[in-house]
Amino acid sequence: MSAPIWQKNSKATIDEQIMDYMAGEDIILDREIFLFDIQATKAHVRGLASIDILKDVEATEMLKYLDELAEEFKQGKFQLDNRFEDGHSAIESYLVEKLGDSGKRVHTGRSRNDQVLVALRLYLKEQLEQMASFSKESARACLKQAENYKTTPMPGYTHLQQAVVSSGGMWFAAFAEAMIDNLAYIQSIQQWIDANPLGTAAGYGVNLPLNRELTTTELGFSRLQINPIYAQNSRGKFELAALSALSQCLLDIRRYSWDLSLFTTAEFDFVSLPDDMTTGSSIMPNKRNPDLIELMRGSYAVVQGATVELESLLSIPSGYQRDLQFSKAPLLRALKRGMDTLALFPQVITNTTLNKTSLKKAIKTPMYATDLAIELSASGMPFRDAYQQVVERYDELEQRTPEQSLNERVSPGACADLMLDEMWERLKDLG
Amino acid sequence: MSAPIWQKNSKATIDEQIMDYMAGEDIILDREIFLFDIQATKAHVRGLASIDILKDVEATEMLKYLDELAEEFKQGKFQLDNRFEDGHSAIESYLVEKLGDSGKRVHTGRSRNDQVLVALRLYLKEQLEQMASFSKESARACLKQAENYKTTPMPGYTHLQQAVVSSGGMWFAAFAEAMIDNLAYIQSIQQWIDANPLGTAAGYGVNLPLNRELTTTELGFSRLQINPIYAQNSRGKFELAALSALSQCLLDIRRYSWDLSLFTTAEFDFVSLPDDMTTGSSIMPNKRNPDLIELMRGSYAVVQGATVELESLLSIPSGYQRDLQFSKAPLLRALKRGMDTLALFPQVITNTTLNKTSLKKAIKTPMYATDLAIELSASGMPFRDAYQQVVERYDELEQRTPEQSLNERVSPGACADLMLDEMWERLKDLG
Amino acid sequence: MSAPIWQKNSKATIDEQIMDYMAGEDIILDREIFLFDIQATKAHVRGLASIDILKDVEATEMLKYLDELAEEFKQGKFQLDNRFEDGHSAIESYLVEKLGDSGKRVHTGRSRNDQVLVALRLYLKEQLEQMASFSKESARACLKQAENYKTTPMPGYTHLQQAVVSSGGMWFAAFAEAMIDNLAYIQSIQQWIDANPLGTAAGYGVNLPLNRELTTTELGFSRLQINPIYAQNSRGKFELAALSALSQCLLDIRRYSWDLSLFTTAEFDFVSLPDDMTTGSSIMPNKRNPDLIELMRGSYAVVQGATVELESLLSIPSGYQRDLQFSKAPLLRALKRGMDTLALFPQVITNTTLNKTSLKKAIKTPMYATDLAIELSASGMPFRDAYQQVVERYDELEQRTPEQSLNERVSPGACADLMLDEMWERLKDLG
Amino acid sequence: MSAPIWQKNSKATIDEQIMDYMAGEDIILDREIFLFDIQATKAHVRGLASIDILKDVEATEMLKYLDELAEEFKQGKFQLDNRFEDGHSAIESYLVEKLGDSGKRVHTGRSRNDQVLVALRLYLKEQLEQMASFSKESARACLKQAENYKTTPMPGYTHLQQAVVSSGGMWFAAFAEAMIDNLAYIQSIQQWIDANPLGTAAGYGVNLPLNRELTTTELGFSRLQINPIYAQNSRGKFELAALSALSQCLLDIRRYSWDLSLFTTAEFDFVSLPDDMTTGSSIMPNKRNPDLIELMRGSYAVVQGATVELESLLSIPSGYQRDLQFSKAPLLRALKRGMDTLALFPQVITNTTLNKTSLKKAIKTPMYATDLAIELSASGMPFRDAYQQVVERYDELEQRTPEQSLNERVSPGACADLMLDEMWERLKDLG
Repeated sequence: MSAPIWQKNSKATIDEQIMDYMAGEDIILDREIFLFDIQATKAHVRGLASIDILKDVEATEMLKYLDELAEEFKQGKFQLDNRFEDGHSAIESYLVEKLGDSGKRVHTGRSRNDQVLVALRLYLKEQLEQMASFSKESARACLKQAENYKTTPMPGYTHLQQAVVSSGGMWFAAFAEAMIDNLAYIQSIQQWIDANPLGTAAGYGVNLPLNRELTTTELGFSRLQINPIYAQNSRGKFELAALSALSQCLLDIRRYSWDLSLFTTAEFDFVSLPDDMTTGSSIMPNKRNPDLIELMRGSYAVVQGATVELESLLSIPSGYQRDLQFSKAPLLRALKRGMDTLALFPQVITNTTLNKTSLKKAIKTPMYATDLAIELSASGMPFRDAYQQVVERYDELEQRTPEQSLNERVSPGACADLMLDEMWERLKDLG
Repeated sequence: MSAPIWQKNSKATIDEQIMDYMAGEDIILDREIFLFDIQATKAHVRGLASIDILKDVEATEMLKYLDELAEEFKQGKFQLDNRFEDGHSAIESYLVEKLGDSGKRVHTGRSRNDQVLVALRLYLKEQLEQMASFSKESARACLKQAENYKTTPMPGYTHLQQAVVSSGGMWFAAFAEAMIDNLAYIQSIQQWIDANPLGTAAGYGVNLPLNRELTTTELGFSRLQINPIYAQNSRGKFELAALSALSQCLLDIRRYSWDLSLFTTAEFDFVSLPDDMTTGSSIMPNKRNPDLIELMRGSYAVVQGATVELESLLSIPSGYQRDLQFSKAPLLRALKRGMDTLALFPQVITNTTLNKTSLKKAIKTPMYATDLAIELSASGMPFRDAYQQVVERYDELEQRTPEQSLNERVSPGACADLMLDEMWERLKDLG
Repeated sequence: MSAPIWQKNSKATIDEQIMDYMAGEDIILDREIFLFDIQATKAHVRGLASIDILKDVEATEMLKYLDELAEEFKQGKFQLDNRFEDGHSAIESYLVEKLGDSGKRVHTGRSRNDQVLVALRLYLKEQLEQMASFSKESARACLKQAENYKTTPMPGYTHLQQAVVSSGGMWFAAFAEAMIDNLAYIQSIQQWIDANPLGTAAGYGVNLPLNRELTTTELGFSRLQINPIYAQNSRGKFELAALSALSQCLLDIRRYSWDLSLFTTAEFDFVSLPDDMTTGSSIMPNKRNPDLIELMRGSYAVVQGATVELESLLSIPSGYQRDLQFSKAPLLRALKRGMDTLALFPQVITNTTLNKTSLKKAIKTPMYATDLAIELSASGMPFRDAYQQVVERYDELEQRTPEQSLNERVSPGACADLMLDEMWERLKDLG
Repeated sequence: MSAPIWQKNSKATIDEQIMDYMAGEDIILDREIFLFDIQATKAHVRGLASIDILKDVEATEMLKYLDELAEEFKQGKFQLDNRFEDGHSAIESYLVEKLGDSGKRVHTGRSRNDQVLVALRLYLKEQLEQMASFSKESARACLKQAENYKTTPMPGYTHLQQAVVSSGGMWFAAFAEAMIDNLAYIQSIQQWIDANPLGTAAGYGVNLPLNRELTTTELGFSRLQINPIYAQNSRGKFELAALSALSQCLLDIRRYSWDLSLFTTAEFDFVSLPDDMTTGSSIMPNKRNPDLIELMRGSYAVVQGATVELESLLSIPSGYQRDLQFSKAPLLRALKRGMDTLALFPQVITNTTLNKTSLKKAIKTPMYATDLAIELSASGMPFRDAYQQVVERYDELEQRTPEQSLNERVSPGACADLMLDEMWERLKDLG
C-alpha cells in the first residue's frame, strides 16, 4: 500500500498525482495474469502469421522472445513494476526492445481490451481447475472421516438445542455431499466460461480476417465468444460466475468453521485440533485458540464483499469504461483469500478429531423422545396420544442407548444408512 | 405491511407482541409455495403408504383431500392467512378437519424442516424453468433484431466517447449471445438443484425406512439429496445458486437499460420506444419518459440486495435455526422483481426501434481513423508511422462511408460477420 | 404479493402488463407515508396562501378537507389502494372530489418529486425519534441488569475459549454503553436530516416566490434544504444515513443475540429466557427453542441487504430517474424489521435471567492465571519469569475465588469499577 | 500479493502453510497504523509510570526509544516486515532489543486487543480529520464554480430527458450543499468515535488501577470508552461509522462523475476537462477519454464492498475472535481508495469547464412550457385549461429566452436565488 496521494510531497504536479491515481495498483495485480497474457500473445502471433499479417520468420522470433520473457518473469529476472503502464505494455515493450519496430506489430488487430479479457479468462480457467481439485480433495477427506466416525454417537442440534441422537459419520458426510455438489457447480462454471474473447479488439472487431478459430484451439478454449460488444460486456459477468462457485465452497466452510468454533469450546468439548492448527496464549498455558478456524470462517466475508464491489461497478452502459479496471482487484483478492482457505480445508477436515467420550456424555435421555414418538405414531397411534405416551413413558427412555438410536435411524441418508458408497460413486462420476 | 409492533394498542400482552414478531409475514410468503407444499405432501403420503405406515385407504383419502385443498386454494376458496402458523400447519389442519385424528398421521416421519425444503425446491425448479424460457425468448428477440438491423451503421463507444463504426446488428447480437449464455447458466443450475430433500426430517433422519426413491420419482427430481444435515445446510445455498442465475440475466438487462437510457435522450436520439413503453409528462406534451427502462435498470439492485441478505443470514452453525425463516422473503422478493423484469425483456427488445437517420448522422469522420491505421499496419508499416500517416491523411478519411467500414469489419463476430447462424444453432442445441 | 405479470391471463394487453410492472407495490408502500404527505400538503397550502397564489378562503377549505382525509385514512374509511397511481394523486383526487377544479390548485408550484421527498423526510424524522427512544429504553434496561448482576461472576471469553473471570455486570454494561453510543449516533443523524426539501419542485425550482421559510417552520424542520438539484440528489442519501443509525443498533443486538444463542445451549446453560420468549417443541417436552433470539439475530441481514439495494440504485446521474421509486421498498422494509426488533430489545434484556449456579460452576482454575501473572509482572518480575512462575504455582491458583478476582479487576470500566454512574449520567445528558 | 499457499513449493510443512495463512497481509497493513501504535504505547508507558508500575527512569528510557523507533520508521530505517508477527510485537521487540528484559514491561496491563483498538481509533480520527478537510475544500470549489456559472443557462433533466431550463450555478451549488452536509456528517462521526479504548486489555480489564484518565488526555480523546467488553465489541462498529461518512462523500462524487461522463460525450458536449484529466487514445488523435472520472465513479463500489465485508465479519458473539483481524484490510482499502478520490475532487470541480455555447444550443423551446403553465395556474387558471393553453400557445414559447427563464425561477434555492451566501455562511459555521 503506497502512500496516499494527498500525503505526497508538495512538489508533485497535479498531473503526476492524477497519473498515480489512475495507475493505482494495476501493475501489481497484472503480475497474477502476466503469464496468461504472454500465452495469449503467442496465440495471437500465430493467428496473425496464419493470415499473413506476420511473416513466419517474424512470428518465430516473437514466439521465441515471448517464451524468453515468460521464463525471465518466472525466474524473477524480469520485474513487472511501474516502469510499465500495465502488463500489456510490458510485453510490447519487451518485444520492441528485442526486435525493434517489428516488435510493435504484435499489437496489430488486437486491443488492450481483448488482451486483458483473454488473460483474465485463462486465469479464471486455471483457478477454477484448482478450485475443482480442492473441492474433490475436501469431499474425499470428509468421506474418509465419515467412515472413521460412522458409528460415533453425537448430539444433533436444532436451534443449537440438543434435539436427537446423530453421528459423527452423518456430520462429516454432510460436508462430503456439500463438497461433491460444489465440485459439480464448479465444473459447470468451468464449462460456461470456456469461451475465447481474443480477436474482438476494443469491442467492435477489426477490418482483418483474424483467425479466431486457430487462437481458440491454441489456447484450449472449447468455443468462441463470438460478439465483440458482448466480449466487453462479459467483463465482470464471467468473474461473478467464478466467484459464485467460490462462494458456494466457502459457504460450507463457514458453516463447518462455525461448528468447530462451538465444538472446540470447553463447554462443548466435542472436537480437538492438533497444536499446529491452534494458537497458544502468551499467558495461559492451557489455552489453545482456534484462530485458524476463525480466519476460515471470516473468509466468506472477503468473497461476499468482493462480489458486491464487482456487481456495483458493472452498472454502466455497454462498451469499455475505465471503471472496469477496478474489477481486477476484488476478483484477485477474493480468489486469493478463498482459494487459500479452500486449499487448507482438506487438512482441517482430516485433523478434526472427535472426542468420543465427551460426545457420548453429551447425549441426554430426552434425545430419545422423538424416536419413541415416531415408533408409536408409525404403529398408528394418533399424535396427541403418542406425545402423551412419551411424557408418561419418560423413564423408559432412560434404558435406550445412543447406539440403538443410531441403528434405528434407517431413513436413507441417516445414521444407519449414510449412503457413503453412493457419494463415492458420484464423486468418481464427476471425474 | 401491517402496523409495527410498537404502534400496537397498549392492550397487547408481551406474548402477543412476540408472537406477532415471530410470525412476521411468513404466512403471506407461504402462499407462493403452498401448491408445492401440497404436491410434496402427496408424495410423502404415497411414500408412507408404500412402507405400510399408512393404509392404502387412508392414503387414498388423504390424496383426495389434498387435491381438493389445492383446488380450493387455486379458486380462492381456501385462504392461507394468519389463522394458521404457516402453510405446513394449514395443510395438516385441513386434513384433520376432513379426516379427524387420522389426518394428523400425514406428518409421520417428516418435519416442517424437510417440508419447507422440498416445497421451496419445487418452487425454485419451476422458477428456473420459467427463467430459462424467458431467456430463450429474449435471445430470439435479440437475434431477430440483429437480423433487422444487420447493416444499420451505429457509432461504437468506448468511455462513452465515439470510437469506431459499429452496427445495430452487432449491438443486438451482443445481447443475443449474452442471453444464450444465460440460458446455459440457468440450465446448469436447474440440474444442480434437482435433488430431493424430502425424507430428511428435522435434519437427522428418522427411525423409519422412508421410501425416498419413490418420493424422488413422484416429484420428478433427478436425484436424492442424501444427507439430512446437508439438506438443512443447503437451505439458502441452493437459493443463492438460483439467484446467481437470475443476476446473470439482470446484469445484461441493466446494461441494455443503460444503453437505452442514453440512446433515448434528445442528445443521442438513437432509439424510439413505443408510447406504451414510455410515460408522458403531465405538463410537457413533447416529453416521453423511459420510466419502464429505468425500473428495469433498477431491478438488479433488488436481486443484489436480496443476495447479500441471504448470504449474511447463513453465517450460522449447522442445523436449523430460526434465522433461516428470513431466507424466504429475500428469495421471493428477488424472484418476483427479477422474473417480472425478465418477462418484459423480449417485448422491450422487439419494440426498440433504431432511428437510422440519427445514427447515420452521428457517425463522424474520425471514427474511420482506426480502420485506416489497421490497414496500414496490416500492410507492414510500423505503428508510429501508421499513426502519423493517419493524421496526415485525415482528409482522405472523409471519403469513407459507414457502410464501407462495416463491410470491412471482417473479424469473426464483427459487423461483416455477425455469425448469427452459429448463435441460432447454439440456442437450438440448448433445447 | 400479487400474481407475477407472466402468470397473468393472456387477455391482458402489453400495455396493462407494463402499467402493472411500473406501479409495482408503490401504492401499498405509500400508506406508510400518507399522513406525512397530507401534513406536508397542508404546509404547502399555507405557503401558497401566504404568497397569494391561493385565496385565504380556498386555503381554509383545502386545509379542512386535508384534515378530514387524514382522519378518514386513520379510521380506515379512506383506502389507499390501486384506484390511485400513488399517494400523491390520491390527495389531489380527494380535494378535486370535494372542491372541484379548485382542488387541483393544490399542486401549483410543487411536483411529485419534492412531495415524496418531504413526506419521506418527515417519516424518517419520526422513525429516528422512535429509534432514539428505543435505544434509550434499551440502555436503561441494560444498566439496570448491570446493577442486578454487578457481582455475579461469569466466564470471560476470547476466541470462545474461557479466558478470565468476568461478571454479569460487565457483560450487561457493555450493551448499555453500546446503546448510549447508538442514541448519540441517532441524535446526530436526526439533526443532520432535519432539512426541508419542499419547494424545490421537480429539481429545478419554479417561477414563483414560494414561501419556503414558512413551510420549514410549519413542518418543524430546523433548516432549509436549499438547492433543488441537491434535494433530488439527496433521495436515498438521507435514507442511507438513517439506515446507518439503525445498523449500529442492530449490530449490537446481533451480537447480544449471538451471546444468548450460545448461553442458552444446554452446554453453556448460562441464561434462561421466560417461556413467552421461547418456543416449545411439538415433540420434546423439555425443549425450549430461542426462536425469538434467532430472528433478532437475523434482522441485521435485512438492513444490510436493504442498504446494498439502496446504494446500488443510486448509481445514476443527477436528477430524478424512476429507479428511485425502488428506494422506498428497501427503506420501509429495513425500518419495519429493524424497529420491530429494536422495540423488543428492552424486554429481552430485562427478561434475560442469569443462572448463577451454572456461571459459577463454569469458572475454572486456569482463569485465574492472568491475574497472577499481572500481579507478578506489576511487581517488576520480567515476563518470562512470571509466566514460568504461573505454571509452577498453578496449585496456588486453586485457592482463588471468582469474587476475589472480580474485586481485584480495578481498571476503570472493569468488574470492580463498572462506572455505571458515569453511564447513567451520559444517558441523562443525551436527553 | 505473495504466491498463494497452494502454489508453494512442496517442502513447506503444514505448519508453515498455516502460519502463512494466519499471518496473511497483516504486517503490511500494520504499517498504516504503526506510528499510532507507538503514540499509544507512549501514553500507556506514562500511564504505568503514574501508577508506579514503571519507575520514572524506566519510563523515560522507553519513551526515548519509542520516539527513536518512530523516527527510524518514518525515515525508512526501521522496516516493518514479516520478521515480526505484527506491529505490536515489533514495538515490544524493539524495546527489548534496546532495554533488555525491562523492555517487556511495556506490555504490563495491556493486551494486543486494546492496543490495536487504540491505534486504529487514532488512525480513524486522523483520517476523518483529513476527510473533513477535503469536504470543505470540495464545498469551496463548488461554491466558487457556482458563482462563476451563476447565470449560465443549462438544460435541466428528469429521466435524462430535457425538462426545464436550469443553470450551471444551480448545478454546482447542488454539490456545494452536498459537500457541506458531508462535512457536518463527518464532524458528528469524529465526535462519536472520539473515545479511548486503551486500558481495557483483552476485553475484561485487569487487576491494576490503570490511569485511563491520563492516557485519554495524553492521546487527545474527548472521553473514555468505559466498558472493556464494549471496547472489543466496538471493533468494526466504529469503523463502519467512519465508512458511512466516507460513503456519503463518494455517493455525491459518483453522481458528479456520472454527470460528467454524460456531459463529456460528443452528443452532450457540455463539459471540457483539461488534458491532464483525460487520457488520449493511442490511435485516434481527436479522442480524449475521461478515465479519471470513470475511476472516481467506480470508487464507490470499493467502499460499498468493504462495508459489506466488514458487516458480515461482525456476525459473531461478544469478545475478540480472530475473524476481526480481517476487519483491517477492508477498512484500509476503502479509506485509501475513498480518500484518494476525495482528495482529487476539488481539482476536478475547479477544472470542470462548461461549454456555454453548447449549453445554450441545447436549450429547446419545449423547456419553457412549464414556466408558462405555472404562470397561468398561478393566476388562477384550472390546470387542464392551463395545459391546453400551453399546447395552443406553443408558438409564443419560442420568444422566450433562457436568461428570462432563469431570472424568473425565484423560488428560494433556484436559479434566480441560489442562496450561495447562506451556504458560505453554513460552511463557515462548521469551522
